[in-house]
Amino acid sequence: MKLDELATPALVLDRSRLERNIARMREHLARLGVGLRPHVKTAKSIDVVRLALAGQPGGITVSTLKEAEYFFAHGVRDILYAVGIAPNKLDHVVALRRQGADVTVLVDNIAAAQAVAARGRARGMDLPALIEIDSDGHRSGVRPGDDTLIRIGAILDMERGATLRGVMTHAGGSYDCKSMGAILAMAGQERVAAVGCAEALRRAGLPCPVVSVGSTPTAACADSFEGVTEVRAGVYMFFDLVMAGLGVCRIDDIALSVLTTVIGHQPRKNRIITDAGWMALSRDRGTAKQWRDQGYGVVCDVHGVPLDDLIVSDTSQEHGIVADRGGGAVDCARFPVGTPLRILPNHACATAAQHSRYHVVDGGLAVEAVWERFGGW
Amino acid sequence: MKLDELATPALVLDRSRLERNIARMREHLARLGVGLRPHVKTAKSIDVVRLALAGQPGGITVSTLKEAEYFFAHGVRDILYAVGIAPNKLDHVVALRRQGADVTVLVDNIAAAQAVAARGRARGMDLPALIEIDSDGHRSGVRPGDDTLIRIGAILDMERGATLRGVMTHAGGSYDCKSMGAILAMAGQERVAAVGCAEALRRAGLPCPVVSVGSTPTAACADSFEGVTEVRAGVYMFFDLVMAGLGVCRIDDIALSVLTTVIGHQPRKNRIITDAGWMALSRDRGTAKQWRDQGYGVVCDVHGVPLDDLIVSDTSQEHGIVADRGGGAVDCARFPVGTPLRILPNHACATAAQHSRYHVVDGGLAVEAVWERFGGW
Repeated sequence: MKLDELATPALVLDRSRLERNIARMREHLARLGVGLRPHVKTAKSIDVVRLALAGQPGGITVSTLKEAEYFFAHGVRDILYAVGIAPNKLDHVVALRRQGADVTVLVDNIAAAQAVAARGRARGMDLPALIEIDSDGHRSGVRPGDDTLIRIGAILDMERGATLRGVMTHAGGSYDCKSMGAILAMAGQERVAAVGCAEALRRAGLPCPVVSVGSTPTAACADSFEGVTEVRAGVYMFFDLVMAGLGVCRIDDIALSVLTTVIGHQPRKNRIITDAGWMALSRDRGTAKQWRDQGYGVVCDVHGVPLDDLIVSDTSQEHGIVADRGGGAVDCARFPVGTPLRILPNHACATAAQHSRYHVVDGGLAVEAVWERFGGW
Repeated sequence: MKLDELATPALVLDRSRLERNIARMREHLARLGVGLRPHVKTAKSIDVVRLALAGQPGGITVSTLKEAEYFFAHGVRDILYAVGIAPNKLDHVVALRRQGADVTVLVDNIAAAQAVAARGRARGMDLPALIEIDSDGHRSGVRPGDDTLIRIGAILDMERGATLRGVMTHAGGSYDCKSMGAILAMAGQERVAAVGCAEALRRAGLPCPVVSVGSTPTAACADSFEGVTEVRAGVYMFFDLVMAGLGVCRIDDIALSVLTTVIGHQPRKNRIITDAGWMALSRDRGTAKQWRDQGYGVVCDVHGVPLDDLIVSDTSQEHGIVADRGGGAVDCARFPVGTPLRILPNHACATAAQHSRYHVVDGGLAVEAVWERFGGW
């Protein structure tokens, strides 16, 4: 099967770009002396994650317990569930641990720590947990310097039913950085927050074996991981237009695209109509706040080569509208009905989530493999 | 099972609101003497669509051939595929028709009409098609008054391999209307465009048995369907915040919500953190351009009652940030870790698409049924 024979829309993954992106992150972190715990929320595919785990300690990061279930069923044992635990999920964690999965949960408040310990006691086991640190103010976690850190640590360490494994932070604010210097500074801030909190726990006599940091921008750009025991990242495998806008990758590093077909034209409006709408591309407009707004994605030919200055300027559920970025003329006759195009995504996690499989190519048009992926909770 | 015992996030559907919304549209269209061809792209569930088809002619509208496959397998035969046909999908349409599905395709240009006729000839059948009319300039279709209409009609009617079934238009521009008067005017414009093009085809000696119009706002508000043979709508079954912002429904007509759990707080920032991020809510921000921006959704208690002025102000993949709409104080102590909340969606199609099942309630907390839904192509 070749790309231009597939029913569209369809998700395409370029294997050589994927392997190059994974190798680059592996070499960068190896140089800095730290291992990677890949975040599997972007790929949600064992085929992709096997490549990402090569040469790494073997643990993964998940964003849902369904990811934990799936990857454990595919042989991954060491699993960090990196979203603050809801009490209604604790019995699922208990069940996974009873089957042999070493699932670690995350807490950033006293009530959650108490709920973890209480459920562990009730089920006759110790549930391991990390404490989430808020290194950049963008979402959740305990602020460095907040006494709550020690109080949570004491609950996890001293109460039966829980074990304190360490700290983790995610500098998601790095997605909003405006320069490489700002990302480098954010990476330093992320590291200092996590290492500082680990030291505060240790000074209080509490154990902190794990010091976990990461986001794709900070992981890719950091120049030191001193005091850090593991780095987490997921988007780096595929990259996307948001990462290219940040300068973390180039456009031709992006391994993921959506194959679509021209279904009509509105020549008086300089528009091409395709069959990839927001259902296939996602509603993510992550580049809207960057220096270069990429609409719903950059338009490439079927070989993956970007076309002039064409972007997907708007979408409805199953329609994409392709136009010149600046509203200029588009030679619709160059793109007759039936022409296959490929769209580079704003946000790899969001676009991949709209699909149930990857059509794997290696530079050319031949589909060399179909890799299943999953969604939901 | 009760809502406050479910693992979160989870999609909730209120059956009595669903039935009320369906009954209201049925009665409105019956008064105006026209039948409904429900658009199943919102629900993607036979359980929902069975309710919508009661008292209707029996045909449906689909946005993907996977929808056509699924609903045909569940006994629906008359299927309009209302996205301009891509040549790579024609053999799928042929296969469905050979199995007995009466699938009609859509074209808005000469090349597509020729492709339909050529494929029909090659496969030894006549493929029925509608011509798409652009009644509002928002996306695709032939503009009323454009000679192309007659040329497309002649190809479909006269060439072997195709059959001209009529015209259809979708006034998607109604989503951007600023008043009920503007929606009523848009409904008139939609009707006049379709009926006018049907008459133009008939004047040219071409058949036009089907005159199909519709969008939820225009279907719900129109005061005449004279000359129209069928109306299409899908969102009206569930409604959503965009429709409420347009005045097409009230907040308490919205039948769909996402159940989530409080996982933490950032009291100094007046924020509550939940486990429903954009993966559960979708990235749709359809109310951002309306008079009342609802963020990523309106926050309700577990019974579905809106809470003060709380909205989901931001999301990441599996985290929601709940805040006061105006940035005011939030009493985090009222919402301890573990509290279940329900989020009303901006756009029912986009939010439902992130889930694989509906948890059906009927006003109370008891989950009375679980209805499967599907996605993909």
